[in-house]
Amino acid sequence: MPRYKLTIEYDGTPFCGWQRQDNGPSVQEALEKAVFAFSGERAQVGGAGRTDTGVHARGQVGHLQLERDWRPDVVRDAMNAHLRPQPVAVVACEMVDGTFDARFSAIARHYAYIIIDRRAPLALERERAWQVPRALDHEAMHDAAQHLVGLHDFTTFRAAECQSASPVKTMDRLDVTREGHAVVVRASARSFLHHQIRSVTGSLKMVGDGKWRAGDLKAALEARDRRRCAALAPPEGLYLMGVDYAR
Amino acid sequence: MPRYKLTIEYDGTPFCGWQRQDNGPSVQEALEKAVFAFSGERAQVGGAGRTDTGVHARGQVGHLQLERDWRPDVVRDAMNAHLRPQPVAVVACEMVDGTFDARFSAIARHYAYIIIDRRAPLALERERAWQVPRALDHEAMHDAAQHLVGLHDFTTFRAAECQSASPVKTMDRLDVTREGHAVVVRASARSFLHHQIRSVTGSLKMVGDGKWRAGDLKAALEARDRRRCAALAPPEGLYLMGVDYAR
Repeated sequence: MPRYKLTIEYDGTPFCGWQRQDNGPSVQEALEKAVFAFSGERAQVGGAGRTDTGVHARGQVGHLQLERDWRPDVVRDAMNAHLRPQPVAVVACEMVDGTFDARFSAIARHYAYIIIDRRAPLALERERAWQVPRALDHEAMHDAAQHLVGLHDFTTFRAAECQSASPVKTMDRLDVTREGHAVVVRASARSFLHHQIRSVTGSLKMVGDGKWRAGDLKAALEARDRRRCAALAPPEGLYLMGVDYAR
Repeated sequence: MPRYKLTIEYDGTPFCGWQRQDNGPSVQEALEKAVFAFSGERAQVGGAGRTDTGVHARGQVGHLQLERDWRPDVVRDAMNAHLRPQPVAVVACEMVDGTFDARFSAIARHYAYIIIDRRAPLALERERAWQVPRALDHEAMHDAAQHLVGLHDFTTFRAAECQSASPVKTMDRLDVTREGHAVVVRASARSFLHHQIRSVTGSLKMVGDGKWRAGDLKAALEARDRRRCAALAPPEGLYLMGVDYAR
């Protein structure tokens, strides 16, 4: 049976997140309906990361196994035809071996969080970034962020409902850069805890606007106490940028 | 009477363009209603460029004259409060002297046109770029574009309904660059003809996908014949990026 790796882009705004839910449309459901529409097969699309409501993806990865053999470019084009007009697109499709699992085969996940620090509301980036009205010190944010790089117990930056077996994770990269009014937080790790990036970004924003110093962020991490986390950054600034696999 | 220079960002999608129209909502009308809502004054907001339906702006400039004296930051914030939830924002506001006219005082206008060359439809950049399904040769586009730089009769690249007194304009800059799948055309001039950038971009795209050579673009220009222009690029890829003034 042919197995496909799908690279998927979506605007998370109209969805209740990646995962199939009873309470609203999900990206996964949209993809599975598109598969059914062109192939007549009821197949599951397994994803690399379960993005929340309103979170976007430029490089979500999914796997799909079908009974019938289709050329990967036909799968891509047929799915895209049936996904319209929903803001989900299959950017790439390739055949993979039967052991490939979008979630469990992943060796690294890359996210970006976009903050726009300006007084005026966002017209063009509305629902695509977090607008904060005061100028942020992105260099202070970057310096503080380095305390979170490496192997740590991230209990402070973990949602209460997180289902991960352990709060200990290795953050491989946590960079903060500026491009004009956009302050971009880039985070890479093998895997993340539930709400980890939004928790970290919310706390880095406290550093950026001078309410916290780098030492406060470090102390919050070391406290391993959810109550020490700043308010969560909203979902609309977060993008799943890509997922790496061994092969 | 105080006079203000407004720097304005908007998503052109829901508007019938910049200019007040009888047949639908315009950006100008949205701004003038916001002025009335906070000040009670019926003042006109004059714009630097009359963008078409669906065309966006990051740096449109408008002027506004009021009877009563308000601090520029109050004008900005009050207008933004009343513009919500429409995708229009006053990014900056400053006081200018009584002779400042957003349109007639402008000495240069800068536009960007974004083409995304990929097979998959756009999810995140939908209504923000022109998606073309085949790879474009952006270097060939850039080289060809240089034939249009300088003083020329742009009759070929001018809409039939253009009201400019002359088709002769000086294109100061016409660069084509690539950032990933985005091919960006940047055009600068003191002023442009109606549909000039969309006409030029449509023709540059013919060069990019190999249907035209640079010489064909040059010949089209020299023919001074509207029928030699390629199909117009759609509005959703075009952005008014900024306007320069002497001072």
